[in-house]
Formats: sequence, structure tokens, C-alpha cells
Amino acid sequence: MNKKRGEQSFVLPSAPRIVSSASYVGPKEAEGPLGSSFDVVCEDDTLGLDSWEAAESRMLESAVRLSLSKIGRTPADIDLFMGGDLLSQIISAGFAARGLRTPFIGMYGACSTMAESIITAAMLTDGGFSRLSVCGASSHFSSSERQFRYPLEMGTQTTPTSQRTVTGAGAVAVASSEYALEKPVFRAVRITGGTIGRVCDYGITDASNMGAAMAPAAASTVCAHLRDNGLEPEFYSEIITGDLGSFGSEMFLELCYAEGYDLTAIHRDCGLTVYSKEQKTVCGGSGCGCCSVVLASHILPLLECGRLSRVLFTATGALLSPLSVLQGESIPAIAHAAVLEGDEQ
Amino acid sequence: MNKKRGEQSFVLPSAPRIVSSASYVGPKEAEGPLGSSFDVVCEDDTLGLDSWEAAESRMLESAVRLSLSKIGRTPADIDLFMGGDLLSQIISAGFAARGLRTPFIGMYGACSTMAESIITAAMLTDGGFSRLSVCGASSHFSSSERQFRYPLEMGTQTTPTSQRTVTGAGAVAVASSEYALEKPVFRAVRITGGTIGRVCDYGITDASNMGAAMAPAAASTVCAHLRDNGLEPEFYSEIITGDLGSFGSEMFLELCYAEGYDLTAIHRDCGLTVYSKEQKTVCGGSGCGCCSVVLASHILPLLECGRLSRVLFTATGALLSPLSVLQGESIPAIAHAAVLEGDEQ
Repeated sequence: MNKKRGEQSFVLPSAPRIVSSASYVGPKEAEGPLGSSFDVVCEDDTLGLDSWEAAESRMLESAVRLSLSKIGRTPADIDLFMGGDLLSQIISAGFAARGLRTPFIGMYGACSTMAESIITAAMLTDGGFSRLSVCGASSHFSSSERQFRYPLEMGTQTTPTSQRTVTGAGAVAVASSEYALEKPVFRAVRITGGTIGRVCDYGITDASNMGAAMAPAAASTVCAHLRDNGLEPEFYSEIITGDLGSFGSEMFLELCYAEGYDLTAIHRDCGLTVYSKEQKTVCGGSGCGCCSVVLASHILPLLECGRLSRVLFTATGALLSPLSVLQGESIPAIAHAAVLEGDEQ
Repeated sequence: MNKKRGEQSFVLPSAPRIVSSASYVGPKEAEGPLGSSFDVVCEDDTLGLDSWEAAESRMLESAVRLSLSKIGRTPADIDLFMGGDLLSQIISAGFAARGLRTPFIGMYGACSTMAESIITAAMLTDGGFSRLSVCGASSHFSSSERQFRYPLEMGTQTTPTSQRTVTGAGAVAVASSEYALEKPVFRAVRITGGTIGRVCDYGITDASNMGAAMAPAAASTVCAHLRDNGLEPEFYSEIITGDLGSFGSEMFLELCYAEGYDLTAIHRDCGLTVYSKEQKTVCGGSGCGCCSVVLASHILPLLECGRLSRVLFTATGALLSPLSVLQGESIPAIAHAAVLEGDEQ
């Protein structure tokens, strides 16, 4: 059975379910507008460990475990853990997988990793290769800053286009529809399709302007999704992007408009949802953790209670490395999208 | 339909096909015993570009394009490119995907990336989400040395357990069985199952002793595969590991023996296949490119001509980062395995 639609999209006839989710965030994120929604908040963003990197990995592992304990399960019960993070060689996810001792497929899509993992896990579930899996992604302000930009100790000023990397990890448990019917669930959201992104590069070379680098990829994937499926944007309650921030969101809306799609009324960006303006994060939040914690603790509950009926969850990633920036390369980006729907009442 | 077998393994009822493959290697690899088998050999391992990183990415993109041109196809004809490499933020694959302009799912499994990509692509193909995809992985001696170890300019001496990172990129085209019947094919090898790895960590902290770090992961995955499927090792013509090298291979065989499996007669390591002893690479070859070029240009032809009837292709990856080593972390490792069979005659 061919489940492809158009050039980049696919449908999921069996509609795998998101049966649980969990989030773990840092103190700054807890002070934001979604603060009370997150499951775990740390006061000290090292978690008392030796490094921010170790703390990030621990947050991811904890989010995965928590998403499972909410449905009375443990890592030993899952077929697969899929995920990644921003650190070189995705050590947060790799070390988390070591602790979980589950079969592990490591993904890298920069800040698109959560959507990349969810669509891949959903396809594997629909295909009969997994009954219960967990997707997770994390980022950490301090580990990202020193890796991609400057040592924090330098106290470098932020640029007008910068975004703050979210300290946090989100995890969602994806189950086959049969599994979701048999076992207790904490969430009830269906994954009914998705779109796999293409790499776009508009020649941006400024690693402090990720929004501009990623907006073309987000527009490309969202427009491909609508085209592949013959849909108008209004089919969705919201079209959600990962972490374009204020500048990138503006660019994204303009690029979609140029393609004939006016998304102004239905667009939401997780990077603009996670912090308030008073928190002075310049253009908003970013990082793999940004959309994964907003999804786990804000979007999924809205879908569940019916405040949103159907969303296109589109996470964008900038595929740069610290080295590629130093070598003068521009910043390619990619976006992957998952169609998430509330359960039929 | 449940396609899982045991805890980590799965079967592929539709048997997706490898319909093409291509390899691109550096001058040292061309001097080795498989030299005449590789498709493209560069004399200058920068390919005339500004950096080794750019050269590595170009090699990967070229291998993907070549694997497609062998079956009269172009990147525009494929549903998906899956792959990765060893560089931070998998820039070789990300930049290659930018050039290819195909839908792209970035994978990270260090030197296990080729097997990880092949099993994931095969599952997506079997599930009806792809008709034709390409899996690719690359590595480069010079880009790896300076990233993971020391600047080459230092002329650091190799340690007795070191392996040489292969400069090369391999690509295989994976098609649904229907697609393979309809269109011209260059290769005819079936992917009939696989095993998803778990992360293992025996506490090795020496980044120049990857064989020892990876051997437990290889043994874990191979033993899980045999157990999950109720098989004896002799079911396979060969059980092939990616790049354990001489020291790691010895350890791998011992660990399997302790689990009740004697693989001595049927084990092959790509790291020991790609270079000759006279080439003085200490313990052999390594890197994502090692098993991917050996697979593309040596193993697949052997399966096709019937010299091998069925192999378990098990690639191992060490999930360290330059930073995790400096922070004193041990080296976790993972191995993924694909069952490859010659076409029925």
C-alpha cells in the first residue's frame, strides 16, 4: 500500500497515537507563560552534575522515563527510543539511551529533531515495527552557547536577531492504535500524516540569526504539505513552527504568502510561546528543547481538550556546525512536519 | 501486522531491495586490497576544495548521485535520502542533502550510521512510505583526526590500538520490491530483516581504542539478533562487523563465545578488509565510510554473484564527542544490523 502523498508527504492509515508526554525545563522557562504546565522544573540548571552537557542528558533521560511512568510503563517496555539534540555527536541523546538501555535510533535534524523523530516513529509504528516508542529531544542554553557561539564567561552581548536556547527536554510516547486501545493512556492525540523536509539555504551566514536561516525551510515544508495534500491552511486550527522567533516568523509568513497561503491568523511559533516579552529573550526561544517542551506540555493538552482540533507541527532545524560557520559556509536548514489531531469524541 | 521479532529484531515481509550502490574513496583506500572495486578514487583528498570537510560532503553527494545514475535515475526521482557522518552536526550529510534537494532524514549513529540508515529505510519502504530511497554515510581521515584527536600538523604518533579513519563515502539505493521489478536495477540484494541496537558502555575512556569500546555493542546486537530469531550463526554465510579492527574483532569473538556463539569461521570485519597489513594502519580501518564503501563495492557484489548467500551486516558506532572525552566520560557504543540476502536465482 502506497502511503505517500505528493512529493514529500505521507498519510498514516492506522493513525498511531501519542499516549503520553513529559517535559523537564530550567528555571528561566519555568518563569515563562507556560511555567505551570511543565512537569519538572530544575532550580539549578546543572542538576548538581559536573557539566551542563551531563545535565542536559539527564533531563532528556528523565523526560523519557517520566512519559513512560505516566502510563505505568518503564523503558524496558518500549520497542524504540528515537531522538537527538544539538550537541556534537548528539551526546545528550546517546548518553540518555545508555541509561535507558532501550533499542535506540539516533536522529539529527538540529531543532527539527522532535518532529523528525515523531514522523519517523509514527511511520515505523504504522508499518508494524513498533508498538510503543518514545521520541525525545533536548537543548540547554549553556551547553549550546558555548558550543555554537561564545563562552558564557565572556558576557557577549546578544544581537538584535538572537534567540535564547531553551533549557529543556520533551518526550512523547507513540503507540500503535491497538496498543492505545488496550493499555492505559495519559494523552489521546492521533498522528495522521506528515511531510519530510528538504534542505533549504538562502545564504545566511550569521549564526545569531537562526530565524532567517530556518524560515525558508519552514515555508518550504508547510507549502509542500498543503500542496501535496491539496489542502487550504484553514484545514488546520493552527500551523505551528518550532523556533523561528519573531524575526523568522515574520519572514515565514511572507514566504508562505508569496506562495499563495495566508497563514497570519493560524500561525503559532513555539519560540514565541515559551517566553514572555518581559523575559527579554530578544527574538524568542530556540533549540530542540523549545518545541519539544511546548508540544509535550501545551499543544498536546490543547488538542486533547478540543481547544485545537488539528495542527501541523512543523519543527525547523539549522544544519550548521561551529566549524562550518568558521569555514564561512552558509547555514542550510530543514523542517519536518507532523499532522496531529485530537481524538474523535 | 506485527513485524517485530523478540526484543530488538524485526522482519521485512516485502523484502525491500538494494537496487544500486556506489563508492567514492581516497588514495590510501585505493591502494588497498579492494582498490579496483571502488567506483571513484580521488588523487587529492581535498578534491580541490577549501577544506577536508567540504571534500567529504562532496564525496557523499557524488556517491549518492552515482548510485542513482547507475539505474538511470536522479535525486529528483527518490522519495528520501537518509544518512549521516562523523562530523559535528553531521555537516557532510546536511550539505550533501542541500545539493541533492531531496527529502532528507538525518541520522546519527557514528560508524553504525550506514546500517542504521539501511534498516530504517528498509522499514519505511516495507511500510509503504518510500518507493526509492538512498542511504549514504561518509568519513574522512583528515576531518576526523582533527575533530576527534589531534591536529594532523602535530604529527602525533598512533597508539597500538588505533585505527585509520577511512576517507570515503558509500551509498546504496533501496527500493520496494514492486519498484525493483518494474525498473532497471544495478544490484539485486534483498533486505529481509534487522536488529536495532542498544547502547553499551564498558567504561573505555581512550578515544584511540574504538575497537574495544565498540566490540561489546557489536556482540550485544549480534547475540540479540540470533536469540530474537532463534538462529544459529551458521544461518549466515558471514557475520560482518563495521570497523572493530583487529583488537576489537578479537574482543567481539570472545564476547560472542561467552554467550554461546562461536563466530570464528564466519566473521569478517570491514576495517580489516579495506586495508592490507602492508599499509600499516595499525588495527585497521574505521569511520562511517569504512563499512559503507566495503558494503557498496565488495559485499553487495559477493551477495549478487552467489559467493555469499546471506550476511548479517552489523555496523558499530562509538557515541563519543570530542567534548565528552575531555569531560572524562566513557565511550558508549551502539551497533545496528541488517540481514542481506542474494536474490533467489
